[in-house]
Amino acid sequence: MSDIPQRVFIKEEGPREGFQIEGAGVPTARKIELIDALSQTGLEHIQIVSFVHPKLVPGMADAEAVVAGFTPAPGIAYAGLWLNRKGLERAIATQRLDLQGKLTLYASDAFLMKNQNRTREQQLAAQPELVRMYRDHGIPVRTGFVTAAFGCNFEGDAAPSRVVDLVGELLAIAEAEGERLELVGLGDTMAWASPASIQRVVGMVRDAYPDLELSLHLHDTRGLGLANAYAGLQMGVRHFDAAVGGLGGCPFAAHNGAAGNICTEDFVLMCEEMGIETGVDLEKLLECARLAEDIIGHPLPGKVKQGGSLMAMRRKLAS
Amino acid sequence: MSDIPQRVFIKEEGPREGFQIEGAGVPTARKIELIDALSQTGLEHIQIVSFVHPKLVPGMADAEAVVAGFTPAPGIAYAGLWLNRKGLERAIATQRLDLQGKLTLYASDAFLMKNQNRTREQQLAAQPELVRMYRDHGIPVRTGFVTAAFGCNFEGDAAPSRVVDLVGELLAIAEAEGERLELVGLGDTMAWASPASIQRVVGMVRDAYPDLELSLHLHDTRGLGLANAYAGLQMGVRHFDAAVGGLGGCPFAAHNGAAGNICTEDFVLMCEEMGIETGVDLEKLLECARLAEDIIGHPLPGKVKQGGSLMAMRRKLAS
Repeated sequence: MSDIPQRVFIKEEGPREGFQIEGAGVPTARKIELIDALSQTGLEHIQIVSFVHPKLVPGMADAEAVVAGFTPAPGIAYAGLWLNRKGLERAIATQRLDLQGKLTLYASDAFLMKNQNRTREQQLAAQPELVRMYRDHGIPVRTGFVTAAFGCNFEGDAAPSRVVDLVGELLAIAEAEGERLELVGLGDTMAWASPASIQRVVGMVRDAYPDLELSLHLHDTRGLGLANAYAGLQMGVRHFDAAVGGLGGCPFAAHNGAAGNICTEDFVLMCEEMGIETGVDLEKLLECARLAEDIIGHPLPGKVKQGGSLMAMRRKLAS
Repeated sequence: MSDIPQRVFIKEEGPREGFQIEGAGVPTARKIELIDALSQTGLEHIQIVSFVHPKLVPGMADAEAVVAGFTPAPGIAYAGLWLNRKGLERAIATQRLDLQGKLTLYASDAFLMKNQNRTREQQLAAQPELVRMYRDHGIPVRTGFVTAAFGCNFEGDAAPSRVVDLVGELLAIAEAEGERLELVGLGDTMAWASPASIQRVVGMVRDAYPDLELSLHLHDTRGLGLANAYAGLQMGVRHFDAAVGGLGGCPFAAHNGAAGNICTEDFVLMCEEMGIETGVDLEKLLECARLAEDIIGHPLPGKVKQGGSLMAMRRKLAS
């Protein structure tokens, strides 16, 4: 297990994931309260809003006000999400976000069609245009992403060789445009991953591109989120997306199976217990998780906020 | 990862765990309904009741009626739990249970004192008496158990060498009484285990006793249940305790951190996805999980009952 990293890097997506799903009921000031609290935990990357159509996602209608209102802390990249040029322009206009370009391919043509109404060829063709659009705005493109990299509800399991090919295409598109991707994310968008497929897919991608940093975006829809993260750690993955409290997950809501990313504080506890550095103060993060629950007004799926940190218990026992 | 077993054996503890914690509100007939449904899933070992004092555990006051009422299916061991001679005698009197003796030692003297009001010496001395009591009743003793084998809220981390010693003591006690333990369970009673400590402790016990079957009893209080189970599978463990729906867990209850065993159907899905045989029909088990939720009247923490089985989705896509 010598591939287990000494340090992991967490991209906190809770505010964006959570408030996006919660509708328009959460006051802007409370969103800002959570972001400002997260800024005190040691997290280095926080995705705080998405710039999407307010009619489609009422919970993000106040994106500009949230971005204008939070208090940036030094050393933290505050990110936003956008799906088109209009969204990007809104993000740029705030002048307060860390803007990064990202290229995306899909391991499922059927899901790409459902989600974006595009064929594989159209998606491929759109990527160089994206790079140029980012370049026009002076925004670097260092990241790629493979959506549905482990499987999909419309096509079933994703072939690992296909994922390897897609990673190769992402790297080649960037290179052809004079950019070099430093990190490629593998998204388990519909929670098809298991520890076995994490091993298989990450293993094949690593074999093909040993110098490329990989990140995992794992949904906990089938409860395997942390087991999959552990499998990823064993494969040497150092970058993980996560959401405080498990925000974004609505396991008990009417829409079956909607569950968010792995829960940040549960993942941090697992890393701590494995001797892996996270840079995060778990106690402060647990306060954020409880704050998130208070803001959202219903229980969130994260467990450590109830169970408690083991490091804190050790300190108490030692004192 | 060649130690991963081809087949796992699940001890279902949901009915006992769940109805024990739910108080006296659940009608006997509905408890029986769940047990009878679980009997149709392929599970081979179901712990259905505990024989404890009805004033202390009102939810088990109807234990005899539950045992008298369920319909045994062939090939299934129906088990009960007891904590003393009185409880054992009640179990025997039902004449319908698969009775097995079990020896137990604690990796935490402080927890032993809190839980049983006994010193380590008293607990050790009680074990041979237990064997003789079981022998008087014609009940085999094949199982040992180490409580708090990974750590405890009163003493902190359990030293792996101490767990190895306790396993040795359990084997020696049985042998001195002419019995041979076939299986020793390691209990993560207070959810102190992590994938790293599972690896460490199971590894050391296996090195010392390579022919002994181990089982893991993992609580999901800190969300690491399935990650720990995966670590156990990688260490060759084939026996796991689990609870349908995650029964026994009350993550949103007032008593902080009370969480049950790993959720049976989530564990079965993980095994299926890893190519490990469980003998369990996941679709039928998911029906049981939903039934359990209906009986209990509040959401249970298991995820696959919302997210759905991947095997079922593959079948649907193939048809």
